[in-house]
Amino acid sequence: MDNNLTPEKPYVIGLDMGGTNSVFGIVDSRGTIKAQTVISTKAYPDVKDYVKAAVEALQPCLDMIGGIQNVRGMGIGAPDGNYYTGNIEHAVNLVWKGIIPIAKLFSEALGIPVRITNDANAAAMGEMAYGVARGMNNFIMITLGTGVGSGIVCDGKIVYGSDGFAGELGHVIVDYTPEARPCGCGRKGCLETYCSATGVARTARQFLQKSVKPSLLRELNPEEITSYDVFCAAEKGDEIAKEIFEFTGYTLGAACANFANFNSPEAFVFFGGLTKAGHWIMDPITRAYNENVLSLYKGKAKLLVSSLEGSEAAVLGASALGWE
Amino acid sequence: MDNNLTPEKPYVIGLDMGGTNSVFGIVDSRGTIKAQTVISTKAYPDVKDYVKAAVEALQPCLDMIGGIQNVRGMGIGAPDGNYYTGNIEHAVNLVWKGIIPIAKLFSEALGIPVRITNDANAAAMGEMAYGVARGMNNFIMITLGTGVGSGIVCDGKIVYGSDGFAGELGHVIVDYTPEARPCGCGRKGCLETYCSATGVARTARQFLQKSVKPSLLRELNPEEITSYDVFCAAEKGDEIAKEIFEFTGYTLGAACANFANFNSPEAFVFFGGLTKAGHWIMDPITRAYNENVLSLYKGKAKLLVSSLEGSEAAVLGASALGWE
Repeated sequence: MDNNLTPEKPYVIGLDMGGTNSVFGIVDSRGTIKAQTVISTKAYPDVKDYVKAAVEALQPCLDMIGGIQNVRGMGIGAPDGNYYTGNIEHAVNLVWKGIIPIAKLFSEALGIPVRITNDANAAAMGEMAYGVARGMNNFIMITLGTGVGSGIVCDGKIVYGSDGFAGELGHVIVDYTPEARPCGCGRKGCLETYCSATGVARTARQFLQKSVKPSLLRELNPEEITSYDVFCAAEKGDEIAKEIFEFTGYTLGAACANFANFNSPEAFVFFGGLTKAGHWIMDPITRAYNENVLSLYKGKAKLLVSSLEGSEAAVLGASALGWE
Repeated sequence: MDNNLTPEKPYVIGLDMGGTNSVFGIVDSRGTIKAQTVISTKAYPDVKDYVKAAVEALQPCLDMIGGIQNVRGMGIGAPDGNYYTGNIEHAVNLVWKGIIPIAKLFSEALGIPVRITNDANAAAMGEMAYGVARGMNNFIMITLGTGVGSGIVCDGKIVYGSDGFAGELGHVIVDYTPEARPCGCGRKGCLETYCSATGVARTARQFLQKSVKPSLLRELNPEEITSYDVFCAAEKGDEIAKEIFEFTGYTLGAACANFANFNSPEAFVFFGGLTKAGHWIMDPITRAYNENVLSLYKGKAKLLVSSLEGSEAAVLGASALGWE
């Protein structure tokens, strides 16, 4: 039917689904986002209304690229998205509870194949296809947000494990002492309690309390301190702020040194707000990694910061699933 | 040329290379060892003499199956064997130092393709092809010997990582306190310092020293206590011996709970002398695993003991590489 030389379906849809907003992008095979639209995720208590709103919002974007017949498939990155089942399963950060057959719903609404994975895996796919991990077959993506997520790539593929839920490095226990911090998962001492944005805020409150050193952070309400406040203070030479990043980075770097024992990665790619702290966080990560990694792996893995912008990485990563 | 219906080359050679002995097996496609022979590994300071001796020792076995023309390939499981390069690289437990192109040497001597992997990966392949992990696509093999080794299987394949040296879970650091035990790798607190046979002996000496309880183990020279002695004492109701296994198993089970975060395995398969301690070691492993694993993974992974005999598993596992 189609006699010209362009591929029959040259686009995919990528969806970065967050608890608050959902960002949709129409992406070509080079990773260029040709059109983009956003809808609220939490405004639709019924997921069917959400899918309907999404399809409506996508229509003008689809018109720009000649309609849905030019779209090969759709990929979704969503919290607790399961690649094997196509479902979102018991996501704590979404309005929909239980098991949501999101891939099936979008596939029926759009008439194209739809695949889903969790947000950290989508970010890893984005880095592998279009970011700093391009060409790498073995790397570990660490996402530093409200929590700590991860996407593990072995032999060019995301590790999904027996149930689709592999790769929860934020919940590796790094502290078994009685002082270990309680984690939202119900256990204690998870990496996430130290190295997420909220972990940094906890460290800030703790360090301010146990020290008498002056600090710019003392001017703030301890309950409202953010990792950005700590960054701003560190930039102004604040000692406690520097110690907070030192502790956070060292904890993360030492944990990554342990992670290297799994898949001997070519790189760790760090992503998320905390990476904006630049050398304040990357220097202690690097030092801890080098001090703690097994000599067999020394000097082999690069410690990289994502080159993709926040939502861009997730949309591109999700869209990469659309080509499968 | 060959007009009957049997496959043209129905056998493979598997080699389980240890620091002391090398066990060769001729294996058919069902995993039956049709013939077996052993030579000393350490008796040949020159690896070329070793290969020559191996080929001579193999000759009667090969005659039994109609000669080398019936052999499809050879697989080797060896300490520090690298799947990517075909070399043994800087093995501390072998007489040959530096980089030994063992796959190339055997391939030239026998005229068949030869592949190599490390001993723990070979054991994992043996379990996957012929043992308790048959049919599993995601599992973790833990070998408990003089050291602690591991073979990680994701999506039906051994994880080799960027350099062929992935899967060193014995060197995951599980203790960051100042009391952490020094490890042969030059660092402190590695899992291996607690859960290997030598780790059990260290624990025995430590527990005997810090306690005044009577123990059958006090009759032995502390420097000569083995994990088998501890097992015999536990069987006789010795309290300290039971505490030693409790500590060892708990440490291992808690570490495995962390490992589950990587590939959400269907099973952990434990292999090696220490597993002969049966419930003394498996009960605390199971309890620690269940107490420490992320709720997402709870009840999903089986904790299994290898069903293959010591050298059999390694020979079969290595031989599985011969079919590739």
